[in-house]
Amino acid sequence: MDLIRHVEARGSEFLIFALTPPRLATDSERVQEIADATIERLGKIGLDGLILYDIDDESARNPDQRPFPFTPTIDPAEYLANHLSMWPTPVIVYRAVGKYPKPELRAWLSAQDPSQVMTVLVGASTKGAAPSTSLVEAQALRNEVNPALSSGGVAIPERHTRRGDEHLRLLTKQATGSAFFVTQVVYDLNAAKNLISDYHYECQTRGTVPVPFVFTFSVCGSMKTLDFMRWLGVDVPRWIENDLKHAADPLEASYHQALVAATELIGFCRTLGMPFGINVESVSIRRVEIDASVRLAAELRTRLIG
Amino acid sequence: MDLIRHVEARGSEFLIFALTPPRLATDSERVQEIADATIERLGKIGLDGLILYDIDDESARNPDQRPFPFTPTIDPAEYLANHLSMWPTPVIVYRAVGKYPKPELRAWLSAQDPSQVMTVLVGASTKGAAPSTSLVEAQALRNEVNPALSSGGVAIPERHTRRGDEHLRLLTKQATGSAFFVTQVVYDLNAAKNLISDYHYECQTRGTVPVPFVFTFSVCGSMKTLDFMRWLGVDVPRWIENDLKHAADPLEASYHQALVAATELIGFCRTLGMPFGINVESVSIRRVEIDASVRLAAELRTRLIG
Repeated sequence: MDLIRHVEARGSEFLIFALTPPRLATDSERVQEIADATIERLGKIGLDGLILYDIDDESARNPDQRPFPFTPTIDPAEYLANHLSMWPTPVIVYRAVGKYPKPELRAWLSAQDPSQVMTVLVGASTKGAAPSTSLVEAQALRNEVNPALSSGGVAIPERHTRRGDEHLRLLTKQATGSAFFVTQVVYDLNAAKNLISDYHYECQTRGTVPVPFVFTFSVCGSMKTLDFMRWLGVDVPRWIENDLKHAADPLEASYHQALVAATELIGFCRTLGMPFGINVESVSIRRVEIDASVRLAAELRTRLIG
Repeated sequence: MDLIRHVEARGSEFLIFALTPPRLATDSERVQEIADATIERLGKIGLDGLILYDIDDESARNPDQRPFPFTPTIDPAEYLANHLSMWPTPVIVYRAVGKYPKPELRAWLSAQDPSQVMTVLVGASTKGAAPSTSLVEAQALRNEVNPALSSGGVAIPERHTRRGDEHLRLLTKQATGSAFFVTQVVYDLNAAKNLISDYHYECQTRGTVPVPFVFTFSVCGSMKTLDFMRWLGVDVPRWIENDLKHAADPLEASYHQALVAATELIGFCRTLGMPFGINVESVSIRRVEIDASVRLAAELRTRLIG
């Protein structure tokens, strides 16, 4: 069954890889080379789907200096339309909705083929900014112009750690149309387990059928990448930071940590009977880190059923 | 090698079982029956040592109502001397030092055989109380009257979560004579890993040889026992609480959780090269929970080297 029908059926155990499109400044020929290489490399893993991130300058979110400078990237919708047409599975295109005027977003939403594309609508990262389109407006647009287009939301275990009500927030999103949820990179396994557990039992109490959670994992080959993750709001436990800081090969240590954590979470979701998927992303653009992410996805493929 | 020499040599992988002595109101004959049954039951596991807790009314520590009423228990020093003389291994006797006038504590400390007994000196649970003897005074007494008596301290991963400096506090204790550390019951594995990791790398930086950590695990057969653990200051993750609350057999679920957590921590300590021991205690006095604790210790015996 293909990813979109699988998600709509609230199925489980799918594997996704997440990409950030190339930099905006990349010339068009080079962009196609990158896209072709990506299709070639990821095509071998047996992925159920691809995620294309929509990078926003989130410096308004965090007053600390961004560990990596912000570089604008190609609009994922354009990258998909112009360079990834040969990719064989459904694609989940993120929309940082605050970047787009309503007419532009409306046009994009209505043009999407619901049998090929899903979307994750992401609200502006801070309340202070005046977004072109708010998340609520974007959701209303989708409902209006393309209700068949499957859309998901972002789940943040870290917020659950601090406020304890992320599962209720997600159930509200679900009631207004979210068909799945995708997390940030998971380093704090307890936080992810707490969220999925609370969500699961709340669904049980309400008699609501749970939608799939997609848990994101990644490798981290340097302290700078780790700093960046923290800057983005990811909770990285001290022991993980210590292990990476002192490892002879931090990338290998991180690969191993991610594999162990993903495997444990897979077992936890199975025990609960919660539908889930795994998403592997490469946070960094360094070649060795991308290679390790691909290796992680390939290994996780063997641990997922279906 | 026996436990005391093993700990002094900063060795690793020992197994301990922790008991609370019978209630003070128990008649003497019955106390001996309980002690005999304990020796019989625990004798089969192949323990390296026994811990005898010294229960203090900690209601000053927490303004919330104590889930189980406080009942005074027999002084562990007396219980050992009068009822457990047939027990074959070294015993770690806790001293809630705030309960004892200095002359009494001095007499006890000087009477102990350092080849048979170790101690953990525990300070009063709140700064408000006026303890008969402070922890600093108790440590000074030990150094004065029986410096060969091996003594340990309490390590609190939960405090590390909140303040981030528990490893430094432990290194200070170590400098003044603590030969090992024992944790509270571990439910938050991340917190335990963070503490041991920070301690390990701080030892490395200082060129200090680490002393063994003894991690305590237990089973929990009811929500009331869980409430009691929380009351005592143990962080219990939501997913663990949810699992127990919804399990057909909470005791079995808890047994399984404890086994998985202990096994993971064993692997983590081995990878770090940190000396450690495992302590299994029964928080509750219900027979089925005690039986499950004994079963947990027996199973963990097979997973420890040496």
